[in-house]
Amino acid sequence: MADGVRTAVLGASGFAGGELVRLLAEHPRFSLTFLGGGSSAGGTLAEVQPHLRELAAATLPIRPIGAGAIGAEAALVFSAMPHGESARIAASLLELGCTVIDLAGDFRLDAADYPDWYGFDHPAPAWIDKAVYGLPELFAEHLGGARLVANPGCFPTSVILGCAPAIVAGLLEPSPIHVDGKTGLSGAGRGAGEAASFAASEDAIRPYRAPRHQHTPEIERGLELATGQPVRATFVPHLVPAVRGIVTTTYAPLAPGATGEDLIECLAAAYAGRPFVRVLPPGQMVNTKRIRGTNVIELQAIADDRTGTAIVIGALDNLIRGAAGQAIQNANLVVGIDEATALPTVAGYP
Amino acid sequence: MADGVRTAVLGASGFAGGELVRLLAEHPRFSLTFLGGGSSAGGTLAEVQPHLRELAAATLPIRPIGAGAIGAEAALVFSAMPHGESARIAASLLELGCTVIDLAGDFRLDAADYPDWYGFDHPAPAWIDKAVYGLPELFAEHLGGARLVANPGCFPTSVILGCAPAIVAGLLEPSPIHVDGKTGLSGAGRGAGEAASFAASEDAIRPYRAPRHQHTPEIERGLELATGQPVRATFVPHLVPAVRGIVTTTYAPLAPGATGEDLIECLAAAYAGRPFVRVLPPGQMVNTKRIRGTNVIELQAIADDRTGTAIVIGALDNLIRGAAGQAIQNANLVVGIDEATALPTVAGYP
Amino acid sequence: MADGVRTAVLGASGFAGGELVRLLAEHPRFSLTFLGGGSSAGGTLAEVQPHLRELAAATLPIRPIGAGAIGAEAALVFSAMPHGESARIAASLLELGCTVIDLAGDFRLDAADYPDWYGFDHPAPAWIDKAVYGLPELFAEHLGGARLVANPGCFPTSVILGCAPAIVAGLLEPSPIHVDGKTGLSGAGRGAGEAASFAASEDAIRPYRAPRHQHTPEIERGLELATGQPVRATFVPHLVPAVRGIVTTTYAPLAPGATGEDLIECLAAAYAGRPFVRVLPPGQMVNTKRIRGTNVIELQAIADDRTGTAIVIGALDNLIRGAAGQAIQNANLVVGIDEATALPTVAGYP
Amino acid sequence: MADGVRTAVLGASGFAGGELVRLLAEHPRFSLTFLGGGSSAGGTLAEVQPHLRELAAATLPIRPIGAGAIGAEAALVFSAMPHGESARIAASLLELGCTVIDLAGDFRLDAADYPDWYGFDHPAPAWIDKAVYGLPELFAEHLGGARLVANPGCFPTSVILGCAPAIVAGLLEPSPIHVDGKTGLSGAGRGAGEAASFAASEDAIRPYRAPRHQHTPEIERGLELATGQPVRATFVPHLVPAVRGIVTTTYAPLAPGATGEDLIECLAAAYAGRPFVRVLPPGQMVNTKRIRGTNVIELQAIADDRTGTAIVIGALDNLIRGAAGQAIQNANLVVGIDEATALPTVAGYP
Repeated sequence: MADGVRTAVLGASGFAGGELVRLLAEHPRFSLTFLGGGSSAGGTLAEVQPHLRELAAATLPIRPIGAGAIGAEAALVFSAMPHGESARIAASLLELGCTVIDLAGDFRLDAADYPDWYGFDHPAPAWIDKAVYGLPELFAEHLGGARLVANPGCFPTSVILGCAPAIVAGLLEPSPIHVDGKTGLSGAGRGAGEAASFAASEDAIRPYRAPRHQHTPEIERGLELATGQPVRATFVPHLVPAVRGIVTTTYAPLAPGATGEDLIECLAAAYAGRPFVRVLPPGQMVNTKRIRGTNVIELQAIADDRTGTAIVIGALDNLIRGAAGQAIQNANLVVGIDEATALPTVAGYP
Repeated sequence: MADGVRTAVLGASGFAGGELVRLLAEHPRFSLTFLGGGSSAGGTLAEVQPHLRELAAATLPIRPIGAGAIGAEAALVFSAMPHGESARIAASLLELGCTVIDLAGDFRLDAADYPDWYGFDHPAPAWIDKAVYGLPELFAEHLGGARLVANPGCFPTSVILGCAPAIVAGLLEPSPIHVDGKTGLSGAGRGAGEAASFAASEDAIRPYRAPRHQHTPEIERGLELATGQPVRATFVPHLVPAVRGIVTTTYAPLAPGATGEDLIECLAAAYAGRPFVRVLPPGQMVNTKRIRGTNVIELQAIADDRTGTAIVIGALDNLIRGAAGQAIQNANLVVGIDEATALPTVAGYP
Repeated sequence: MADGVRTAVLGASGFAGGELVRLLAEHPRFSLTFLGGGSSAGGTLAEVQPHLRELAAATLPIRPIGAGAIGAEAALVFSAMPHGESARIAASLLELGCTVIDLAGDFRLDAADYPDWYGFDHPAPAWIDKAVYGLPELFAEHLGGARLVANPGCFPTSVILGCAPAIVAGLLEPSPIHVDGKTGLSGAGRGAGEAASFAASEDAIRPYRAPRHQHTPEIERGLELATGQPVRATFVPHLVPAVRGIVTTTYAPLAPGATGEDLIECLAAAYAGRPFVRVLPPGQMVNTKRIRGTNVIELQAIADDRTGTAIVIGALDNLIRGAAGQAIQNANLVVGIDEATALPTVAGYP
Repeated sequence: MADGVRTAVLGASGFAGGELVRLLAEHPRFSLTFLGGGSSAGGTLAEVQPHLRELAAATLPIRPIGAGAIGAEAALVFSAMPHGESARIAASLLELGCTVIDLAGDFRLDAADYPDWYGFDHPAPAWIDKAVYGLPELFAEHLGGARLVANPGCFPTSVILGCAPAIVAGLLEPSPIHVDGKTGLSGAGRGAGEAASFAASEDAIRPYRAPRHQHTPEIERGLELATGQPVRATFVPHLVPAVRGIVTTTYAPLAPGATGEDLIECLAAAYAGRPFVRVLPPGQMVNTKRIRGTNVIELQAIADDRTGTAIVIGALDNLIRGAAGQAIQNANLVVGIDEATALPTVAGYP
């Protein structure tokens, strides 16, 4: 490990941070040298993430977030800090020459959108233009050697990967699209409050933050980047009593004459040979349980010719493909190694 | 109880049947005299539904389904038999003069739709025209004295109650609408197989039967009945790891200039004074847990003016408001008593 | 309602408080006049318990806890305040002449046990001796006219009702007994932290606070009160991924020659005619789901003659029979009405 | 893979079989050559276990169980066939020279115990004496070169590993011990019926099969093998609403003067250097979620000196450490390689 890329994980006490550390422990090229945290600073990794106590990194301390110390010890930084905080530390680290993979939402939108959708003025707008939006299957050519990667949100990942090829192929109209999201509770993070308690969540199906969820403009912008076409999306996410996994179901106008087979073939062709996209054959339905703990996204496409509607459904593990796994996939591409390095494709079941 | 309306429950060993029996036990006017079942016939109610053993009805036998015996002992029949079987026994009972509330889907569509959507030729098409589609808040005037009530499906109930007033008021366009459903596992019934096991369902978010779920034409037909306008709906239901409760999220074109307040006021006005419709104020989100075990439907409406989309969300308990409770509400209106008789409005929590 | 016993609920924003208010709304003799809370004071009931918004009490304010105001407006007080706080307000209310049903653990042990097991010095030890330990089936004769009732804990209720008759009959030895508890998450209360989150709790089976859970001395003391014999109990509770419901499994030396039938007959005889104790026949197993939302306790007894061990298993809903329901049952007996008034015995299922 | 030990998995369509195939796919020395099944024969692995479709083995057919074909293609056979069937095929395979790891319960008890505890006469009693009871940390010296390994049950594994060292050290008395088990639903297998449905299981805490669960004599016999002392155990298992994971809590007389530290030190010493036993320090509690998907067992020991009771708690993943993982650990020792080969120790969380 000693001669790999020296690597930091910021936000190591959170859910995404824990999964980053766990996956990186098996990585042949990235060597964990720095773990950072906010209120958790002071303890060791094993204290804040006791399920990781058998890792070599278990005895590493969680250290306060300071650019100088991080920059001195790491060349590659995964930041899973809270929104807003992440941009600040990222900017400092970039000035110091680090490569940054940002798992917060801090480099995914145009700077002007942050006050509206995230509630803060962006602290480092100049860096936004230099960030690569890290959907590896769509933007791999920009990732090689990138300095700053905006790791996409879980919902946008599933929508954009599912819809972009079909929009480009002219099989569905990008506007308006209606995106219905369902997510387990881990997306709310470790410190979530009463609404995320087991008592409040079991048997509870609940929309939230509609129609102003911050993934809405990210869906639009990401699809526009991928297709060159303007996109308008309405997005309603729902909490369901699961821990891991999201599903998005996107409804869009179907091009006249297009069939379900057309949609499926288009997706299958777009992702042929890519290790983490599983396009389902006609009649099969996505299932988050089947890909839990993996970096795989399942995609399903249906043409409802009764109503002229294309339905594109994506399922992924929000902590792996929607966060830590995709971040590592991006980092693999940044440094020029196999994108699948250290990333699982096969789930335990049930 | 002896001098109430003599009442039969067919399908008493299922989930909806069990809830019917439980709620009817508190009904001041309906007296349970006959419990019928298919493979469960032979045992007592307490044997097939052990949670009901303290009821007076606990010692009643589950008897085979035969029109003669039922007609001799009951004037009012709730049929929670499987689709197809229900129509056959209902037709016989109607000939004998019984009043029938059908909880199956057997009188909800036009006869010509059954082969396509339910997979059978309708055995009693003449009765379909005489059936009242039992959405009590919309069709109460047809329910008084009705002989046959088609008790609506759980998903259509939530969509039609949520959208019909807004369509009539011209606040949203009825076509195309995109309906995204989420449901717990109890909708699959007691005898559901491997896919409904706990092992397969925990942490699993799964679409199913899209785009050919049999509630699709019911949504269209019910909205047309309620609004007089043609409706086209695409419907994708999803299984989530809950037992009770459904949520439907409907996306439709918003009339120019219409606001969220317009939508909410329209719904509030439509259901003013009705005991079981809870229209939420702006910013509040529906929650199935809050109405579990009750006959209440929660409705929420949002205008996404960025995209010109109306979002109408409904939540209900599929076994009560989506089945047994609504059936009793309908029967109350058929016999001319307070629609709220014997129906709960307040949930235990959590 | 106006002429019933004026009744206060303290801790109305918690889980047990919410269930008290819900059940009392149907009570023909107790009239809610005062709702009290700590940090929740200021809002209305509907704001802190939105599932209760259809109740007449929904518009009542949650008021700060002050003995003067409470005593002026209520004769009967249910206190679901936190441990320690409850004893203080109860003592003041008792001085003012109120009758108090204490749902905290503040009058269940000897005063000397509080520092060890609850971590505080008891603020009103003189009242402990005057408190009646409120297991209605065992101590009904002390409840009529009582001024202060110590409403038992959920685990002790199930153990004591299950074991006391068999100890008295000489069928099992009271010492040592090993009590293994399993509980859902609602027992931790509404404000529970990260360990009670859905993410941390799904698929997690976890012992907690063993062997120093505060219900341990209550089990011993309650059994001693009921049997006159000294009892030593080891108690290990476990959190399981449920919301409502507890099961205790008690292992004790079986008297030579005693059989499972002896145990069951003993329990059945002890509780004959009581509405809320369901003694299961041989071979049937308790199930929390079957009694969820009810005041029923299910009891099961087994003799393992291979090893000379009696196994007594109890199941109840911790928020109803283990808290709000039993409190109302006790209050019914205090005022001399049917103990079953306003208490449910039949669960919805599933 | 071509030159590894040719390996068969029988029962490949079940939960344990699926996990065997998944883990073996990463094994550097065992090459999957044969997948067998009962009613699932005919399809490919990917058809019966769609979550495994990215494995190289995905296209292997599930073939009928026949000793000739298996013996011709495999030298090492993991049998996850149903009880009774497994013994029959194992005996035939052993005659053909195969090495067999039996995941059924067919070689764990004395032949005379099968009619009582499993309900069948043992078809191959001569092989029972030759079987090694495969608890790797206790019986590693018998495993090298073994022909037949009886892979232990999930509950016995946790009890025996937790208690045996303390019995040998004289810290607790082996008789009587009271063992209380809690398990998720995956233990019931893929084809489990209505009682294992999500609807019947959510919020349900239920004992089952007490006091006659077939793991009872296995706990006694395994402890006797490990300690040389006679053991009497009462065992009550409970179903809780989880998928994976079991906890056993064992209550036993504590040796006079023994402390919790003594128990913990004894366990820590017994398993020092072993990769899969995690003995928790005082005050920490086991948690199935923390070891889900791994081969790790967590052990916790407490001395309740108030009552003279030793409490030993074990937690493991029933499909990995309680089945597929322990089977591979045993096979690794049989062939003389590192016991940890291809077995996970670190869980994803949450």
